[in-house]
Amino acid sequence: MSSFGTVLLTGAAGKIGLRLREFLRPLIRLRSTDILALDPPRDGEETVRCDLSDPLAARSVVAGVDAIVHMAGIPREAPIEQIASANLIATYNVFAAAHAAGVKRVVFGSTNHVVGFYPVEQSVDASALPRPDTLYGASKVFGEAVARLFWDKHGIESVCIRIGSALDKPTNVRQLSTWVSYRDLGELVWRSLVAPRVGATIAYGVSAGSRCWWNNSAAGHLGFIPKDNADRFAAEMTEALASEEARGPAVVFQGGPWAADGYDAA
Amino acid sequence: MSSFGTVLLTGAAGKIGLRLREFLRPLIRLRSTDILALDPPRDGEETVRCDLSDPLAARSVVAGVDAIVHMAGIPREAPIEQIASANLIATYNVFAAAHAAGVKRVVFGSTNHVVGFYPVEQSVDASALPRPDTLYGASKVFGEAVARLFWDKHGIESVCIRIGSALDKPTNVRQLSTWVSYRDLGELVWRSLVAPRVGATIAYGVSAGSRCWWNNSAAGHLGFIPKDNADRFAAEMTEALASEEARGPAVVFQGGPWAADGYDAA
Amino acid sequence: MSSFGTVLLTGAAGKIGLRLREFLRPLIRLRSTDILALDPPRDGEETVRCDLSDPLAARSVVAGVDAIVHMAGIPREAPIEQIASANLIATYNVFAAAHAAGVKRVVFGSTNHVVGFYPVEQSVDASALPRPDTLYGASKVFGEAVARLFWDKHGIESVCIRIGSALDKPTNVRQLSTWVSYRDLGELVWRSLVAPRVGATIAYGVSAGSRCWWNNSAAGHLGFIPKDNADRFAAEMTEALASEEARGPAVVFQGGPWAADGYDAA
Amino acid sequence: MSSFGTVLLTGAAGKIGLRLREFLRPLIRLRSTDILALDPPRDGEETVRCDLSDPLAARSVVAGVDAIVHMAGIPREAPIEQIASANLIATYNVFAAAHAAGVKRVVFGSTNHVVGFYPVEQSVDASALPRPDTLYGASKVFGEAVARLFWDKHGIESVCIRIGSALDKPTNVRQLSTWVSYRDLGELVWRSLVAPRVGATIAYGVSAGSRCWWNNSAAGHLGFIPKDNADRFAAEMTEALASEEARGPAVVFQGGPWAADGYDAA
Amino acid sequence: MSSFGTVLLTGAAGKIGLRLREFLRPLIRLRSTDILALDPPRDGEETVRCDLSDPLAARSVVAGVDAIVHMAGIPREAPIEQIASANLIATYNVFAAAHAAGVKRVVFGSTNHVVGFYPVEQSVDASALPRPDTLYGASKVFGEAVARLFWDKHGIESVCIRIGSALDKPTNVRQLSTWVSYRDLGELVWRSLVAPRVGATIAYGVSAGSRCWWNNSAAGHLGFIPKDNADRFAAEMTEALASEEARGPAVVFQGGPWAADGYDAA
Amino acid sequence: MSSFGTVLLTGAAGKIGLRLREFLRPLIRLRSTDILALDPPRDGEETVRCDLSDPLAARSVVAGVDAIVHMAGIPREAPIEQIASANLIATYNVFAAAHAAGVKRVVFGSTNHVVGFYPVEQSVDASALPRPDTLYGASKVFGEAVARLFWDKHGIESVCIRIGSALDKPTNVRQLSTWVSYRDLGELVWRSLVAPRVGATIAYGVSAGSRCWWNNSAAGHLGFIPKDNADRFAAEMTEALASEEARGPAVVFQGGPWAADGYDAA
Repeated sequence: MSSFGTVLLTGAAGKIGLRLREFLRPLIRLRSTDILALDPPRDGEETVRCDLSDPLAARSVVAGVDAIVHMAGIPREAPIEQIASANLIATYNVFAAAHAAGVKRVVFGSTNHVVGFYPVEQSVDASALPRPDTLYGASKVFGEAVARLFWDKHGIESVCIRIGSALDKPTNVRQLSTWVSYRDLGELVWRSLVAPRVGATIAYGVSAGSRCWWNNSAAGHLGFIPKDNADRFAAEMTEALASEEARGPAVVFQGGPWAADGYDAA
Repeated sequence: MSSFGTVLLTGAAGKIGLRLREFLRPLIRLRSTDILALDPPRDGEETVRCDLSDPLAARSVVAGVDAIVHMAGIPREAPIEQIASANLIATYNVFAAAHAAGVKRVVFGSTNHVVGFYPVEQSVDASALPRPDTLYGASKVFGEAVARLFWDKHGIESVCIRIGSALDKPTNVRQLSTWVSYRDLGELVWRSLVAPRVGATIAYGVSAGSRCWWNNSAAGHLGFIPKDNADRFAAEMTEALASEEARGPAVVFQGGPWAADGYDAA
Repeated sequence: MSSFGTVLLTGAAGKIGLRLREFLRPLIRLRSTDILALDPPRDGEETVRCDLSDPLAARSVVAGVDAIVHMAGIPREAPIEQIASANLIATYNVFAAAHAAGVKRVVFGSTNHVVGFYPVEQSVDASALPRPDTLYGASKVFGEAVARLFWDKHGIESVCIRIGSALDKPTNVRQLSTWVSYRDLGELVWRSLVAPRVGATIAYGVSAGSRCWWNNSAAGHLGFIPKDNADRFAAEMTEALASEEARGPAVVFQGGPWAADGYDAA
Repeated sequence: MSSFGTVLLTGAAGKIGLRLREFLRPLIRLRSTDILALDPPRDGEETVRCDLSDPLAARSVVAGVDAIVHMAGIPREAPIEQIASANLIATYNVFAAAHAAGVKRVVFGSTNHVVGFYPVEQSVDASALPRPDTLYGASKVFGEAVARLFWDKHGIESVCIRIGSALDKPTNVRQLSTWVSYRDLGELVWRSLVAPRVGATIAYGVSAGSRCWWNNSAAGHLGFIPKDNADRFAAEMTEALASEEARGPAVVFQGGPWAADGYDAA
Repeated sequence: MSSFGTVLLTGAAGKIGLRLREFLRPLIRLRSTDILALDPPRDGEETVRCDLSDPLAARSVVAGVDAIVHMAGIPREAPIEQIASANLIATYNVFAAAHAAGVKRVVFGSTNHVVGFYPVEQSVDASALPRPDTLYGASKVFGEAVARLFWDKHGIESVCIRIGSALDKPTNVRQLSTWVSYRDLGELVWRSLVAPRVGATIAYGVSAGSRCWWNNSAAGHLGFIPKDNADRFAAEMTEALASEEARGPAVVFQGGPWAADGYDAA
Repeated sequence: MSSFGTVLLTGAAGKIGLRLREFLRPLIRLRSTDILALDPPRDGEETVRCDLSDPLAARSVVAGVDAIVHMAGIPREAPIEQIASANLIATYNVFAAAHAAGVKRVVFGSTNHVVGFYPVEQSVDASALPRPDTLYGASKVFGEAVARLFWDKHGIESVCIRIGSALDKPTNVRQLSTWVSYRDLGELVWRSLVAPRVGATIAYGVSAGSRCWWNNSAAGHLGFIPKDNADRFAAEMTEALASEEARGPAVVFQGGPWAADGYDAA
């Protein structure tokens, strides 16, 4: 248990949030929050239920923390009203509350889907212009823009982590390129919290692997080195020669099936 | 009066919209819309009052047009709830409605404030990463991301015009760099409508002038050449040697006073 | 009539060659050659009929000149055997003959079709990787590579002119972007001959115009300034709103109809 | 033995082709072809003798395969007539035949000599403009341009492998930078065949090593990781302080002795 | 006569300094200094003789001014001891004195010879790494580094003007690319003094002209537009075809004869 | 002991010089020099005391060597007169003496403080413009410019090593990013001496480590691979959440405390 402060974790009841709770709890005092009910707090943790789309609630839950790991939000395509509330407004509220409370650093759960329309044969780094593959991806472009705004205007540091496919292991060919293990993601979040200086950093949340599309050189100062490697799962995937069948957006673009036309919000 | 189609102009009761109505009316059949009351339609024009944050209203007003000039939205800093409704949701609705209706091109009124945190001594072009100076600016980053998404995913072409200072004439030193005359802006909108191919173009909406910070080379295919030049108003501005007083964000950043800390939404 | 040397002009009976003969004859002693019959020589000119795909013939016609303007070659799509002979082998022979004869500079008639598969909304300069739209275009990529080879290996300077649409005037919308007048092309060839130092330069042969796609900044040292401007013919072209019909390769790519699938060699 | 298709290997009697036959035979059904006599086919292989400079022969040998590994061609400097037939015309014929037969992917044996005139102290990647060191190198520039053309125009994917020094082991100082082992080259060819999507990829065919000049980041999506490393042969090479004697093109340029003036075709 | 402050002009007895005195005197109160004797002061001017290599003298002459135009220094190749005193130490002293006195902006007379070893066929802008052609040029690289240091560390703004060939008119072919008229140079100095914000700007001091090698886009915020154009003197220069004689460094490099080996300090 | 030549090591009595003597003595005949008294020579070494700010002394000590490792100079901030003598003049003298004596390669001890004002979250390579954090750093910018000059003008190859924190081990958080072990530095110097071709190379002298800010890809041809890694000392450093206290230049800039205002020369 660290003695040096409290970190707010939002989205703590989500798939990734649950794993981050486990990872971060031994390292730091944690305030875990979600719009959904949360498991009971464990040692060194407090839990708060909160709707971040309400600015007052956001201010209240942020009060007294030293840093924020903002993972809350809808993690898939959804209608604009839902995205607006959970991703657009809530994210702005978190940064505004951080500013009001004097919090100096935010780690933001962005997504690889902000660059989902780059073709898989193109290496992409942090300087690539956004090419989101969904409204969901566009909402994270907005979140990254807000992060940059609060750095430029108010000096709040941030690391926007463009999370790949957070899973126990890759389950298809695309994920050989995009997989991030939970412990690698946890380590990257941790390094984003303790690196001496991050400014407004954009990092890809991805484990190692020879097929990875993303170049993390702009995040080298974080000192993050993945421990896991997607390649050891490659043998499980059936390889096939290039074929007529494999021409759709799901193969062509980094966003995979999300880049397909039919993937729109219902 | 052109015979070849109808263009929807949103935000037609706004400061810029009013001028665009005048400019475009002789060139094309116009459907002008706004959330506010509109002046009566003139020759070759119809007017519709409409709240674009309602997706059904958006679909209705878009039906039957051949192209859209989307200028609606709050044109200044405002609280997140207002920005979300008028700029984020409404813009998404316009593109979604265009997709539903088979409209093939949208001209989007973006703003120079998407790059407002670049220092004035840096030349900026369309490949610069967004550095918005306000929540307003961040909302236009979202709009540009949505434009890109609908191009990549649905083949809807767009020109995002990062409008400078649209005024009758520049009124301070900063505007010698940012001024766009109404006729130049009208001409740029027109060229964005009729250029044979635009993909997802980002253009700066600015008249000529030796002090301009923005490089429009990525929009050369539009064939836009400004007719007005801010330099002829330079003599009216008082020049002064660099002085201690002139150090604030309003002088340092391209966004001018909008980049200052105190410029936040009330 | 200049007194300082002789220039070999190949392809002198072709459409462009004929115009260059007229342009250059008052400026320099000319040796004009073609595989076809040539008009009788005029003052300060000699004419030679020659098949440049024969290396000995190439050596013979090159002997004694001070510089070469190599415009010979098939100027359109054609079967590989014809392209190989007239464009690939002949161009190599010309450079090899220049090397053997100690000629120090070659102006090579390349084509905009070496970058014909760039989309029209992208500004292209001399650093863009080749994206030819035809076998013809690929043959000019080879010619440019040979030019670079003879510079790097043997110190023979060259200017590869990527000629746009050389015509009396633009006749369609695409040519508003690609047109080069004969006098501008002549001037560019002339400047390529007399500029003090050119190394291995790539230049676009295009007149002025607001719709031009090509950035000639890498050829600034030639001191070429177009006298003609395609814009004055814009009013003759019918403008139309973006429409479903206008989606084919001919509108999408800089190569125009040449980039269409059906444009293959018969 | 794979069950999913047939790959045509051209140049199968050449130095590299022989090794690729061995490498690929266990992995895929192989049709091996060469202009020279071939060893008898082995399990899962058929052999065809064929002159690819004849378009009909090319069409015939391509019929029925799923992918092509095109290694045929003269692998050294040669007179233009030979290069034209074996490298220029034959390569075009292979791509044209692939298009006619509906083959969707071609792996093309290009060479490091397409960038042989870059100095050894410059790191080169796939975006470097061609600077061939020989006519041979220029012929591969043409081949890469043809590969790009058939991708842009006809959707045929390709991987152009710029092969370094394919040898059992490095035998001089330059090869510490350029060596590729046969198993690494085989693996790279294999990955080029089975990667889900390659577009028009340019890859360097080189094993690992601290002295390597080439940056393969644009081919990361292939998932190729060299198993061999040139460094373990470094101790065998005599190192010497910089000396007057070591100034020639063979030391200065990446192409080594091929970049020297005297290396021209006889 | 302006009423708003005093500008220190160093090197005021030099060739350029004399012209700047004339240009600036009507615009601003001037303190002119040189190590040599100066002409008597004119209206609105005071003159001080001063050796800037003495830090106390530098502090004394800087006291009380609002901005500095630092043109002092040896303007040609010279032995290291002289360069060290007049260019290296003196320039450091001027910036240190500015810091001590609270002066907020310095215009520094740099030279095109900081990039003199770029070949003439390469367009060079402010982002090019230094390639000086002389010790003199290297001393100006140091001066520019000092300017950047005092901006980054102490907030002193600066414009480093890489002066071309300041002459009444161009007198040879090279100067068609490098000429700057005195009135254009004066205007550029003036704009450097009064532009609202300059940070640490690098600008090329050159008049207009089609043969210019330098791209001033990084200095666009100064609002400098040359009034003079070197092209109108082009007809006076004898043009010649490329010839064996014209191969030396004086033609090959932007620094002209200064880049030749024999141009070393005696 | 090598038999192939003599290397001059300057600054041989300094902290780094002493370690390089040890490292290089077994590899090469060494002439060690310093302005201070030196330890007695060991096998295969001669020692000379010499003030390199005296050009004749520099010529004398350089005579007869085959290469130079120039490490002499004041290694910290100091008044301009001292920096001018020991760093500016002495470095020029060393290169001028190398030219006079026909020495063909110089390894120059530069410093990471030439880029000390880049923020720690930015990856920096050899193409970054200088942003020195001290007069000391600016003096090394001059040294690198001189190295480039002697390469461009006189063909003297050089490797400028931007040395990080040369220590037995890292002792604070910043040094986790900047540490270079003595054996890694020795190896880099050695590789700089024996690499077949270096032109004018800029290399970062830094050991491996996940927190390293510097990208050495432009020095790949040296074949340098660090053996030591700063990460194994990371556990010794206390990590802390981002806090108000950690905002100063020492954390913000790569130069660390040297970038702070108060770090000026006394």
